[in-house]
Amino acid sequence: MSGLRLGPGREFDRIRQIVQGLGTAARGIGDDCAVLPEVRGRVVVSVDLALEDVHFRREWLSMEEIGWRAAAGALSDLAAEGAEVLGLLASVGVPREAPEDDLVTLMKGMGRAVEAAGGAVLGGDLSSSAQWLIGVTVLGQAARPVTRGGAGPGDALWITGMLGGARAALQSWRRGEEPAPDARVAFAHPEPRIRAGQALARAGARAMIDLSDGLGGDAGHLAAASGVGLEIALDGLPVCPAVAEAAARTGLDPAHFAALGGEDYELLVALPSGFSPADAAALGREAGVTLTRIGSVREGSGARFTLQDREVGLAGFDHFA
Amino acid sequence: MSGLRLGPGREFDRIRQIVQGLGTAARGIGDDCAVLPEVRGRVVVSVDLALEDVHFRREWLSMEEIGWRAAAGALSDLAAEGAEVLGLLASVGVPREAPEDDLVTLMKGMGRAVEAAGGAVLGGDLSSSAQWLIGVTVLGQAARPVTRGGAGPGDALWITGMLGGARAALQSWRRGEEPAPDARVAFAHPEPRIRAGQALARAGARAMIDLSDGLGGDAGHLAAASGVGLEIALDGLPVCPAVAEAAARTGLDPAHFAALGGEDYELLVALPSGFSPADAAALGREAGVTLTRIGSVREGSGARFTLQDREVGLAGFDHFA
Repeated sequence: MSGLRLGPGREFDRIRQIVQGLGTAARGIGDDCAVLPEVRGRVVVSVDLALEDVHFRREWLSMEEIGWRAAAGALSDLAAEGAEVLGLLASVGVPREAPEDDLVTLMKGMGRAVEAAGGAVLGGDLSSSAQWLIGVTVLGQAARPVTRGGAGPGDALWITGMLGGARAALQSWRRGEEPAPDARVAFAHPEPRIRAGQALARAGARAMIDLSDGLGGDAGHLAAASGVGLEIALDGLPVCPAVAEAAARTGLDPAHFAALGGEDYELLVALPSGFSPADAAALGREAGVTLTRIGSVREGSGARFTLQDREVGLAGFDHFA
Repeated sequence: MSGLRLGPGREFDRIRQIVQGLGTAARGIGDDCAVLPEVRGRVVVSVDLALEDVHFRREWLSMEEIGWRAAAGALSDLAAEGAEVLGLLASVGVPREAPEDDLVTLMKGMGRAVEAAGGAVLGGDLSSSAQWLIGVTVLGQAARPVTRGGAGPGDALWITGMLGGARAALQSWRRGEEPAPDARVAFAHPEPRIRAGQALARAGARAMIDLSDGLGGDAGHLAAASGVGLEIALDGLPVCPAVAEAAARTGLDPAHFAALGGEDYELLVALPSGFSPADAAALGREAGVTLTRIGSVREGSGARFTLQDREVGLAGFDHFA
């Protein structure tokens, strides 16, 4: 970027290389702060950590995939507000022994993810560290941010895309095997549902959350924030094709297996009961993702899951476990 | 905070404890994103990493000081824009063996720093990690953000506060000694110059930067961004009292020692030549900090430093070194 004017130093040489690698995906880097454009509506912000050997392993993913996935996971929080993407800032800890190119490639992955979502890399911070660590800050704007707190009795619960792919990939890697292609893509290259989130907000979404902690955990958050109970029948849950084999190994029903997985980055949304299957099909075509009805909102508290009319427990995915 | 409504889970129990510990310093936590209030002017954003054994050591600082210092270092970037503070988001990696209280105490330190600066903790992300890591995202608003890029020939260079305290503290710790009290405070409890930054912006600041990389590095950034040369006489540099003894051990002049130190978080600012010593005294009283003239802006490039009329080289503080 021709506008980048920093003084001399190795740390700043790295920043120059990153900005060159980012090309059009970098904007306004090089001051103490990133200055956002004038916004319409409200600014929404979220932060997300991706740590080597906690959230990913080097042997599973390329550097570009590590960058894409870290950015996509954070961008998914903007999708859940129905927001438009402004951009991201990246805090990256780089192992001392890492080849110089790895950081540039990682940042290219982040740049591609944020550019695909309509934003740019706006700034960041670099440090040396024992292992790779990526802190992502995403910024968006929304005329009417959709919170987790607006669902009411009688609303219907819908979900974007398919679940369970990321969990199936993790299970394969942990057994020392290469995941099925669709499971690998779900983990390495998740698509933040930015367009779907905006379309759902326009369609009157009353509450929305992205599935980072798994359906069990995140449905619980939406229920708690809205002060309602949720009834979800897992029988109709859309699952990634690779899940069938992975679930068979655990002895679980595929839908149960998929519902236990974290980091699928699909959206769980409460819509007014008048939102019809035809509305869902039209919205799905517009946003490039399927939309499936999985349950309903009632008075009460907590999320209750059934499979073949029997209640099943879903403990949430715990990032401390 | 009574408004916090999350589902069950250990990770969310931690968030509940943090929010309770933060008290009035927490605002609006618990959705996918933090929603900023409607802003006047432009939103400015910066991110900063503080890593155990890179930026600090546990044996040097209390958990509350670690939190304060991480927040203050990031808030200092808002000061350098002349911005008003909206708040911060914290990404924290917590060692598995850490006592439960440590995270709450760390966050209290961050809460105190951001509350003292006029903002609140707006959100965050938690993970387990091998060592403590703190990623801070700060958000502010400014009618006219002051960049590094507006200095012109004839402007005068001023600096807030005193330099060298953080470096003197680091030197003592590395020798296995306890730092002098003023040096320790400079490192453990830096004051982000928020009020001074705003007052300097109102006084017509043409370019501003905070001294995180040291005077040598940061003056170079300001010169590069503004496309000018800087002339700085170190003789008049305001130094922390503890610096005299620390500098003597290295055989350097105290001003030279102080100019080589990083992370003092004071502001270097280019002001129009008409800004007088009386203006500086009045602004300093208003903002609670001294303001000292240390040089001038000329045509050319780079930053040139003199001491007793002889040129001295100042390599910047390198976070990768």
